Amino acid sequence: MNSNPIFNMHIPTKLVFGCGEIKKLATEKLPGKKAMIVISSGTSMKKYGYLDKVINLLTENDTASIVYDKILPNPIKSHVMEAAAICRERGCDFIVGLGGGSSIDSAKAIAVMACNDGDYWDYIQGGTGKGRPVKKVLPVVAIPTTAGTGTEADPWTVITNEERQEKIGFGCPGTFPALSIIDPELMVSIPPHLTAYQGFDAFFHAAEGFIANCSTPISDLYALEAIRLLAKYLPIAVSDGKNLKARAKVAWGSTLAGLVESTSSCTSEHSMEHAMSAFYPELPHGAGLIALSEAYFETFRNDSMKRYMKMAEVMTQQKSNRPSDFIDALVRMQTACNVRDIRLSDWGLKEEDLPKMVQNARDTMGGLFLFDPRPLTDEEILNIYKKSYR
Amino acid sequence: MNSNPIFNMHIPTKLVFGCGEIKKLATEKLPGKKAMIVISSGTSMKKYGYLDKVINLLTENDTASIVYDKILPNPIKSHVMEAAAICRERGCDFIVGLGGGSSIDSAKAIAVMACNDGDYWDYIQGGTGKGRPVKKVLPVVAIPTTAGTGTEADPWTVITNEERQEKIGFGCPGTFPALSIIDPELMVSIPPHLTAYQGFDAFFHAAEGFIANCSTPISDLYALEAIRLLAKYLPIAVSDGKNLKARAKVAWGSTLAGLVESTSSCTSEHSMEHAMSAFYPELPHGAGLIALSEAYFETFRNDSMKRYMKMAEVMTQQKSNRPSDFIDALVRMQTACNVRDIRLSDWGLKEEDLPKMVQNARDTMGGLFLFDPRPLTDEEILNIYKKSYR
Repeated sequence: MNSNPIFNMHIPTKLVFGCGEIKKLATEKLPGKKAMIVISSGTSMKKYGYLDKVINLLTENDTASIVYDKILPNPIKSHVMEAAAICRERGCDFIVGLGGGSSIDSAKAIAVMACNDGDYWDYIQGGTGKGRPVKKVLPVVAIPTTAGTGTEADPWTVITNEERQEKIGFGCPGTFPALSIIDPELMVSIPPHLTAYQGFDAFFHAAEGFIANCSTPISDLYALEAIRLLAKYLPIAVSDGKNLKARAKVAWGSTLAGLVESTSSCTSEHSMEHAMSAFYPELPHGAGLIALSEAYFETFRNDSMKRYMKMAEVMTQQKSNRPSDFIDALVRMQTACNVRDIRLSDWGLKEEDLPKMVQNARDTMGGLFLFDPRPLTDEEILNIYKKSYR
Repeated sequence: MNSNPIFNMHIPTKLVFGCGEIKKLATEKLPGKKAMIVISSGTSMKKYGYLDKVINLLTENDTASIVYDKILPNPIKSHVMEAAAICRERGCDFIVGLGGGSSIDSAKAIAVMACNDGDYWDYIQGGTGKGRPVKKVLPVVAIPTTAGTGTEADPWTVITNEERQEKIGFGCPGTFPALSIIDPELMVSIPPHLTAYQGFDAFFHAAEGFIANCSTPISDLYALEAIRLLAKYLPIAVSDGKNLKARAKVAWGSTLAGLVESTSSCTSEHSMEHAMSAFYPELPHGAGLIALSEAYFETFRNDSMKRYMKMAEVMTQQKSNRPSDFIDALVRMQTACNVRDIRLSDWGLKEEDLPKMVQNARDTMGGLFLFDPRPLTDEEILNIYKKSYR
């Protein structure tokens, strides 16, 4: 980053944060009168009563709603298209994304396709997307029940084109949520391993955004605080999921990391992970990132020395004079969160797949490689994959 | 602040920051087709060519403009009313505030009165204001040429009712600027003493917002960074006004302090200063704050010990174990900025005025006393005034 930097900040989202704050859904000014609530195909939104709660709070706020409940953990384009058609047919004028990143990202993509004709991939930049301009987007309300994606504080949505094995991020000013309610009480039921996967996703949004060559004074501020909070509180939230203080700190760390994504950018670690879960949709995004991370960050250790030491300092609260202190702290954090022994082969990845991952990472989210501290060669990318493979 | 805090953040303003970034006025999407440019009655906007530059950049952006150039350093209601009438008559659909806080604050108040009937004081809460709800506000573009008020990043506007000697802050969601362009190159011509007054205004927005009982995790993040930047770079900007790096750091510190005002609040130091400059409009706001500050912060030294030590740590970059370290650092910073010997009597203040200041501070901006670390008695307020008087 330049010593006299030039940068923008524009985050139009209203963030409402705090334990119990889901209740504000009944009193906040909402951006429409009839909502489509988008949730995953899993059972948790119903089992824990979150869906009923949201429907009731919307009703209290004089707002009708319908539910679309088919979203997969790695959300796919055909569901976006189906839900957008229902949305138009039933006259919904805003979308509520309730759940993890998959539901909220889908809500954003549905909000795009409810107002624009053709296919979602017509609007995607990258891969085989056609990059058409988006005319209008329905307003989105985001209610995360996980702490990881940061999608509540950024315009990004990541959808997989299941026919083409492309998993690509997209966003425009209209896909910033109008309102996001982050209530850590909705996160206490997340099991330990998912808490860790999601929390590390947030951690890498911050760490990648901090070493990105497009980082800015404002993204740095958000990133270092997110890194500090997640390093300190994620291990506690993993081992004691009912600890509301730890859940709240992790949730806030994740939202801050979302603000990093709005003011800086992820780097190619995310492209490389997206390639893996495009081919193996069962692989949780956070688990893939954790598997890649040591080799990935090792690669730039001598390119971003001061920034590695800064990250180490907020993680350890001690002076650092070696960039490897960051790698050491990262490894300790993974051990503390019981995710040190992730084996990509457990999710079906084969070693012979790795070369085609390199190509997919370049093809679909190749733009993020431009933000790395220095350009990576294909050989280096393959090496990161190989070192990460077990 | 609570360990499980509940808070909101909603800053719809687009901030464009950087040396030379004024040029973006020609390319950014503007919120209207005909602007009223509001500047002060002084000569600097014309002398340094800033007004011509802004008119030309607007023209490049297919936008017409007219100029209102009567704003006083402590801006008054009659100018707001006059400009709003011209604005309606001439069909302006947005307002550009160009200059210091007085011009930008006036731009916001004019934007209110261009869309609402009656008198500006009908809408003011506090003092003799009637607190009527504001219906609509014209969009505002803020172009600060000073680093102090932070008004480019908050909804607040401070106008003096010259007939009633009330100087009161006002704001609503509509008075957030739609766009703010912060170009440190426009600040190099500010003379040293004004650089110091304005920079300390920003510093106190951050420091008050940090000890305020309504501080939040996000306001704390902004506040500590603003305090760090201003403590380090304000003395350099004062002694070497052409130092663009220092100007940029101070400008960014001031904008961050504006974000503090949008996410926490000033405390009663600001009420006490507003009372003084309501009676003595020649007294620069920042000079009044500097004069009050040592006695003011001394008063809460034992109420906010941890927060004082945190502020001292970012100012000195050393561990602190005594809250008085903050007061010491504040005094050293004032000395380094050549503003240690401010005498309120130089601006005409008389010692016998002080008791009526207590009443005015309570009457007009009494709300801020609610955010102090603990409630102050009238006797304590008078004592702060007396200790500050020379």
